[in-house]
Amino acid sequence: MKIEMEPIGYVRNEVKDRKDVSWGEDTSSIVLDSQYISGLKGLEDFSHVIILYHLDKAKYEKDKHLQRRPQNREDMPLVGIFSQRGKDRPNRIGMTSVKVVSVSEDTLVVKGLDAIDGTPVLDIKPYYPVYDKKDAAVPEWVDRLMEHYF
Amino acid sequence: MKIEMEPIGYVRNEVKDRKDVSWGEDTSSIVLDSQYISGLKGLEDFSHVIILYHLDKAKYEKDKHLQRRPQNREDMPLVGIFSQRGKDRPNRIGMTSVKVVSVSEDTLVVKGLDAIDGTPVLDIKPYYPVYDKKDAAVPEWVDRLMEHYF
Repeated sequence: MKIEMEPIGYVRNEVKDRKDVSWGEDTSSIVLDSQYISGLKGLEDFSHVIILYHLDKAKYEKDKHLQRRPQNREDMPLVGIFSQRGKDRPNRIGMTSVKVVSVSEDTLVVKGLDAIDGTPVLDIKPYYPVYDKKDAAVPEWVDRLMEHYF
Repeated sequence: MKIEMEPIGYVRNEVKDRKDVSWGEDTSSIVLDSQYISGLKGLEDFSHVIILYHLDKAKYEKDKHLQRRPQNREDMPLVGIFSQRGKDRPNRIGMTSVKVVSVSEDTLVVKGLDAIDGTPVLDIKPYYPVYDKKDAAVPEWVDRLMEHYF
């Protein structure tokens, strides 16, 4: 079963190469395809949105990525791809909750998006705390992994 | 530009028709395709996961869905599709953070997934609070909309 999607727009920012840390200060513009512009109506009333994007530069290879150590770090455990947020995953969908900086006619400006310049965007969803915010427990390695991420 | 995806597995539960409320008590099994089974390793150490799925029964029509009132309720404002979580959206990706009930060889059992039986699953991501949990502000209509959702 094949599922087909098309970008609704693209990420524009100063990040030209992928990186594993320090995404917190980057500001990105999401420039929408003209047919979707009026879908932004009302977004300025939200403080945060969730961006779903296509990790088009990633390459999932079963033998290398179905199980791996996060960021290939020796101090991380060997876990499955569905137990980590790594980019080389089946279907290569990235997902990040970011702060809304501004909304103009065809462009949404956000802070903290960990996607490089030119990344195709698949969806924008408003962040609903009652739906998205969880008091979740994680294994101890996650806090070590995320230490310098933002 | 076309982006192709394939399901990594399917939702199995007792919900045969879509609904707008009371998803909180439903338990769902996500049965993985055999090639992805070992990708679940380590997931039992997380309390919550994020499920991305293909809303295959939804139909996005620009004139009806690019702007609409959430759940078509008269007491909701007219907002763009990217300012709401409605299912009839471009690319039809659904996304929900759910509680992990159990992980077995090829099946992840979760609670609170708002997807009907047979829904194709696109990705499973562990919930990282430092990454996903936001103190977000929303317009007042969101709290009214979500009152009986779970």
